[in-house]
Amino acid sequence: MPTLVLLRHGQSQWNLENRFTGWWDVDLSDQGIDEAREAGRMLKSKGFEFDRCFTSLQTRAIRTLHLVLHELGTLWLPVAKDWHLNERHYGGLTGLNKQEMIDKVGAEQVLIWRRSFDIPPPPLDADSPWQLAGDRRYVGIDVPDSESLKDTIARVLPYYEAEIVPALLRGERVIVSAHGNSLRALEKHLSDIADDDIVGLEIPTGQPIVYQLDDNLSVRDRYYASER
Amino acid sequence: MPTLVLLRHGQSQWNLENRFTGWWDVDLSDQGIDEAREAGRMLKSKGFEFDRCFTSLQTRAIRTLHLVLHELGTLWLPVAKDWHLNERHYGGLTGLNKQEMIDKVGAEQVLIWRRSFDIPPPPLDADSPWQLAGDRRYVGIDVPDSESLKDTIARVLPYYEAEIVPALLRGERVIVSAHGNSLRALEKHLSDIADDDIVGLEIPTGQPIVYQLDDNLSVRDRYYASER
Repeated sequence: MPTLVLLRHGQSQWNLENRFTGWWDVDLSDQGIDEAREAGRMLKSKGFEFDRCFTSLQTRAIRTLHLVLHELGTLWLPVAKDWHLNERHYGGLTGLNKQEMIDKVGAEQVLIWRRSFDIPPPPLDADSPWQLAGDRRYVGIDVPDSESLKDTIARVLPYYEAEIVPALLRGERVIVSAHGNSLRALEKHLSDIADDDIVGLEIPTGQPIVYQLDDNLSVRDRYYASER
Repeated sequence: MPTLVLLRHGQSQWNLENRFTGWWDVDLSDQGIDEAREAGRMLKSKGFEFDRCFTSLQTRAIRTLHLVLHELGTLWLPVAKDWHLNERHYGGLTGLNKQEMIDKVGAEQVLIWRRSFDIPPPPLDADSPWQLAGDRRYVGIDVPDSESLKDTIARVLPYYEAEIVPALLRGERVIVSAHGNSLRALEKHLSDIADDDIVGLEIPTGQPIVYQLDDNLSVRDRYYASER
């Protein structure tokens, strides 16, 4: 039976500092490392095994996956890394402390940017220290200026259909280690969640979510691995 | 200019215990973790960057690579993992303490098995605790009973030609994180070392070896990264 486990990376240094991160490549915090290891131990204790892994091009998600696979004793599994699974690009919010933003433009505007379905934040300033222009991992990729959740979904789902669905249709057990918003995209699709509702879906860090699928990939069950 | 960096994994728990390891999946020791991190920091300090990575299906080599890539800030690089880069299979020597073997069959016989070019050790006993029959990473692979260095070379080089050479011919900078004998295979080929000499070539753990190649992959230079 195809199984898809979704895992949001452990706490990052900027989660801890309450800053908008997006595509900036922030590493795990010490707590994030612990969360990832604990997720791996928990999956192992419940007998989970995987055949194939997918993650973003961002250190916090890749490292979370590696820590999980190490605990499972399966670092040898194939791992596909792709920018389509990156976090939503937060544009001009990148690097800013959430409280500073609220003080500057008001809580209402920040909430619109963070939680509206289709309104992207303004683009990053050209001289922002969080510009990715020099980052060679994105050479040849049309890096967005800023993304709404809708924009994020529009690049996550084609990747899911092209790369992850074929593995699931082969009956493989797949783990995706990614980010709050790239996983919202998958949850919206799999669980058929409305535009207005998906923005409010909180995905906790380091908590594997299990989708049991049938042979045509309809969802038979969805639960947190820790709960059963 | 194509660059090929060869890296033997950091010290493993069985290196530390002086046991024959081969295909058994022993993890890094604490010292091995430190060696890998130090190799990564050293490569970073000397400006090394990579485009593509290759490793075996064995935890100690994969983890060494991950630790290096983490230090370099390039965990996002593509990593191919393949059994052809595994350590030589030590057959019936697997799991045995080297001193115990010497006490049992004599230093001369152990040296023949360890250091002859084409004499494989006897196969693993069917009831050996180090049998790999239940290891799903090798499903569909004709796991050898035992390998000589010659046997090891005979499966490493076709993989090198098929997978690593094309990357080098594209001008990519490649790192291979592997094992004493799979790296001997590559060193023998690249540096044109005679059968009788290659068995005596010691490759230290955690010390990146740099091959600078020209456009048709002839060797222009070979050195330890730490030395320049």
